[in-house]
Amino acid sequence: MQLSFIQVLELLGTFAFAVSGATAAINKSYDVIGLLSLAFITAIGGGTVRDLLIGATPVAWMTDGISNTAIIAAAIIAAMFFSYVKKLTRLLSTFDAIGLGLFTITGIDKGLAAGLPLPICVALGVITGTFGGLLRDVICGEQPILFTREIYAAASLAGGILYVVADRYYGASGDIAQSISIAVIVVIRLVSLRHNWQLPRMRT
Amino acid sequence: MQLSFIQVLELLGTFAFAVSGATAAINKSYDVIGLLSLAFITAIGGGTVRDLLIGATPVAWMTDGISNTAIIAAAIIAAMFFSYVKKLTRLLSTFDAIGLGLFTITGIDKGLAAGLPLPICVALGVITGTFGGLLRDVICGEQPILFTREIYAAASLAGGILYVVADRYYGASGDIAQSISIAVIVVIRLVSLRHNWQLPRMRT
Amino acid sequence: MQLSFIQVLELLGTFAFAVSGATAAINKSYDVIGLLSLAFITAIGGGTVRDLLIGATPVAWMTDGISNTAIIAAAIIAAMFFSYVKKLTRLLSTFDAIGLGLFTITGIDKGLAAGLPLPICVALGVITGTFGGLLRDVICGEQPILFTREIYAAASLAGGILYVVADRYYGASGDIAQSISIAVIVVIRLVSLRHNWQLPRMRT
Repeated sequence: MQLSFIQVLELLGTFAFAVSGATAAINKSYDVIGLLSLAFITAIGGGTVRDLLIGATPVAWMTDGISNTAIIAAAIIAAMFFSYVKKLTRLLSTFDAIGLGLFTITGIDKGLAAGLPLPICVALGVITGTFGGLLRDVICGEQPILFTREIYAAASLAGGILYVVADRYYGASGDIAQSISIAVIVVIRLVSLRHNWQLPRMRT
Repeated sequence: MQLSFIQVLELLGTFAFAVSGATAAINKSYDVIGLLSLAFITAIGGGTVRDLLIGATPVAWMTDGISNTAIIAAAIIAAMFFSYVKKLTRLLSTFDAIGLGLFTITGIDKGLAAGLPLPICVALGVITGTFGGLLRDVICGEQPILFTREIYAAASLAGGILYVVADRYYGASGDIAQSISIAVIVVIRLVSLRHNWQLPRMRT
Repeated sequence: MQLSFIQVLELLGTFAFAVSGATAAINKSYDVIGLLSLAFITAIGGGTVRDLLIGATPVAWMTDGISNTAIIAAAIIAAMFFSYVKKLTRLLSTFDAIGLGLFTITGIDKGLAAGLPLPICVALGVITGTFGGLLRDVICGEQPILFTREIYAAASLAGGILYVVADRYYGASGDIAQSISIAVIVVIRLVSLRHNWQLPRMRT
């Protein structure tokens, strides 16, 4: 049941990430190959970079048929019902935030399992949650949303630090630490999105 | 003889990919380092991404002196005879299509050897055939041709699926399945190029 | 002492690379997450690509706390004292040239240790020294400085070839060959920068 609940969250997140890639592709007038490719790259890019960095090959998506099916479904749905999907911003933002939270924690767990230093594990979590979107923006020739707008990586970072501290220093059980940290990431992300919060930046 | 024929095809393909990178570099006014680098990245980018994803390191080009020599030759020829090379579009398109076909099949074979699921093997074939051009376009700051114009990845995908089906389900001998699949990719690519076929795309 | 001197050079180089990433981020109005990320990507990008290509995972920066601290320090200093840091171009160029020299030699040594062919080792050295800046420019949506302006990769290439020849063919002791090669890279880089030398490029 626990496992199945996590899997549902992961599928919702993967679906939302793929829709965001498909939407970017449609906005750029990509063809159907471009649409499918960008849905995949956005959804699996973060986990792929993480797996490459720690040497976990073949990378995870190659043997994850369920996620791949969710991505293809997201691409098809985004393509067929684009005008409808565009209006579901709030629902998709919520799924996306869930994906950000879950991928952050998954990434950290992979780092911990590889015996890496704690700050590096947190960095791996943030990379897992955010680099798919970074690749999407770089391929599309857009300035990375990740680096320029919105509280996104910062939410992942805050939840990731919380998870590592709760898990390692306070001995919270993995499940509880995970659930709280994911919830914190989702809440920070959605509240900041609602209020259009931004991080400070330097004036040149 | 068989081996030698395949090698000739691979060299023609590598040469054409490298020329396409060198041409892009010249069009962007890159210097000689940029020209050589972009020739290499375009020619070996797809195989490199494939090898990284499946964990086959050091990646293939590092021990493939013949291909590297072909790439350097392509860069020099493109730089010295640019006005002449530009006119050979049909010849270069044919070489490029051969490269696309051969790299697709090579990529699939590496996936099969790694015991990966068949759809993933096909994806690896398409990545091998197309991601060099994707990297070229992203580095140059151009919208990826791969995602926006022309039947390119789609030809690779069609031939790749044919290869896997013929090889695994109909037990065609490897050589025959390979030859037919490469021919199918070359024909789809060249016919679609001649007639300027494009894939459907979504209207926003 | 020898070791400590090399480490000081490496920290100066890492610091300069990180400042160059942070500066690019500030010029692009990235937020603090973007600034920190781009400082890291610029400073560790080259070594990361090198490690991925040869399969040395987890990649080096994950267990290199000193470099990571230097990068964070560089990002903070660049952000807090930007108007001052901007004026230190000559000092930063010198540090950057030292980083280019040292990273080139480090990359070559990793290739030699992996038993790769000598030209590939030189290529790995150039990749180590230059691909951080390439990633910085691609993410920022700028044409790569590496490919379009200035003697940068060429300096790395010249020093790298010198190092391999001196070390392998003339049996110079490692320390002497390293020191001379790094000095050659630094001098070529700084002299060419002073005189605004550029490589030839093709006219289209």
